[in-house]
Amino acid sequence: MQKRNFEHLFKFARDLTVDAGEQIRTSFQKEITVDFKENRSDLVTNMDKQIERFFIKNIQKSYPDHRILGEEGFGDKITSLDGTIWIIDPIDGTMNFVHMQRHFAISVAIYHNGEGIIGLIYDVAQKDLYYAVKGQGAFLNDRKLPALGSIDVGDAVIGVNSAWVFEKKRIKEGIIPHLINNLRGTRSFGSAAIELAYTASGKIDGYISLRLSPWDYAAGKILIEEVGGKISTINGDPLTILTKQSPVFAAKPGLHESILKNFLIK
Amino acid sequence: MQKRNFEHLFKFARDLTVDAGEQIRTSFQKEITVDFKENRSDLVTNMDKQIERFFIKNIQKSYPDHRILGEEGFGDKITSLDGTIWIIDPIDGTMNFVHMQRHFAISVAIYHNGEGIIGLIYDVAQKDLYYAVKGQGAFLNDRKLPALGSIDVGDAVIGVNSAWVFEKKRIKEGIIPHLINNLRGTRSFGSAAIELAYTASGKIDGYISLRLSPWDYAAGKILIEEVGGKISTINGDPLTILTKQSPVFAAKPGLHESILKNFLIK
Repeated sequence: MQKRNFEHLFKFARDLTVDAGEQIRTSFQKEITVDFKENRSDLVTNMDKQIERFFIKNIQKSYPDHRILGEEGFGDKITSLDGTIWIIDPIDGTMNFVHMQRHFAISVAIYHNGEGIIGLIYDVAQKDLYYAVKGQGAFLNDRKLPALGSIDVGDAVIGVNSAWVFEKKRIKEGIIPHLINNLRGTRSFGSAAIELAYTASGKIDGYISLRLSPWDYAAGKILIEEVGGKISTINGDPLTILTKQSPVFAAKPGLHESILKNFLIK
Repeated sequence: MQKRNFEHLFKFARDLTVDAGEQIRTSFQKEITVDFKENRSDLVTNMDKQIERFFIKNIQKSYPDHRILGEEGFGDKITSLDGTIWIIDPIDGTMNFVHMQRHFAISVAIYHNGEGIIGLIYDVAQKDLYYAVKGQGAFLNDRKLPALGSIDVGDAVIGVNSAWVFEKKRIKEGIIPHLINNLRGTRSFGSAAIELAYTASGKIDGYISLRLSPWDYAAGKILIEEVGGKISTINGDPLTILTKQSPVFAAKPGLHESILKNFLIK
């Protein structure tokens, strides 16, 4: 795909995302139906479904050869990275959407032959659009985000939910507590996409979640890499969007290597 | 103090708070100086000091007999609850203020002979003003907040920082982890005042911090009680603003009693 086509595709994706955000904000006035997926902490609303269908319908019309991986499962079954793939979370942070009507995001990533080329994270209530086009930097509402600098572990504020403190299956017991005790502080905003966008824009210094699906991090990965940040599994391995769930660690350059070496890889 | 005087005092406090918020938002354009207090996670900026002095100067001019307890210590030494006392945190969530320019608040409470009569929490970046006057309900930007309903522990999302998971001095080891494992989820926004305002407005179902100073919770307490929520120490004892630091637990009615009984009081 050529650079000129990136630009056209980016504008198409951006317009869809902003339009979807407007639909969600309008829904604040209406009743929202809430279903439960596998477990009670994994909500899904009629709005999640409506927005995913909105993306799919429009993408299929304009780009019939593109494939779509969406959280709600209305898209395609993706088993190879060939061609152009959209990875969409229509509402990341559904619990926040339902309870707070804020702190949730639309996450849209476009990968071409396995490489992330366009990433958008739209903090809908805040009307903050974070976006990146591969090789052209990352932006927040048309303001270019500066390259991330490094920071010491003891000065770092990391997004990490307290649920992971007790995790024994995905990580050796004691590793997350030891890390947390050596940070300046932690936060948990309840949306992976927002916490990755916060990392890309330097609002927090990094983010850890031990269980993310591709649609949770695909756009954030592109944003973070465009400002010089690092994102990998908690073992330092590259992330692949074909893996159903991954333990994800993103951080400022230098900090990422330091935390991997001194805390996560034991 | 008579009700008529409450109203006048409320308007005075509200105008000061909104004016202070405007000063802080203007400062986003300027350089901020950061000092460290006792430990590195306890920042203070020139803006914290400037805003506290702004409140003190104006209160002393209009209400010379009122006393002032402020986080930065420019106010009075408070050893009794007699008369009218302002309890002010000029910037609650200073780390967020410095790093994010959002998710911080001005917290202003007015107590009269030990009773909270006026509470204001101003989410400055969001321009959200939460306020309450004793007996007249609580409001968010002039919209009256509904009375809080109850919710089951397993459906509840509670603000609790992961740092408290490891605490052994202020609470018996294992109590916070056991509670967290039984909740639907946790959040941590990095500002006690905002998390108490979120509790009062039903955005989260409760908030726990094992170490809060009076200026962190004094306004939130008034807001939460005006919508039928409960706030106490983690042992269920009443909070008193003469105590330097308290372990604080706020939640929806019913939920508060249930968590106290089944998790916190062992």
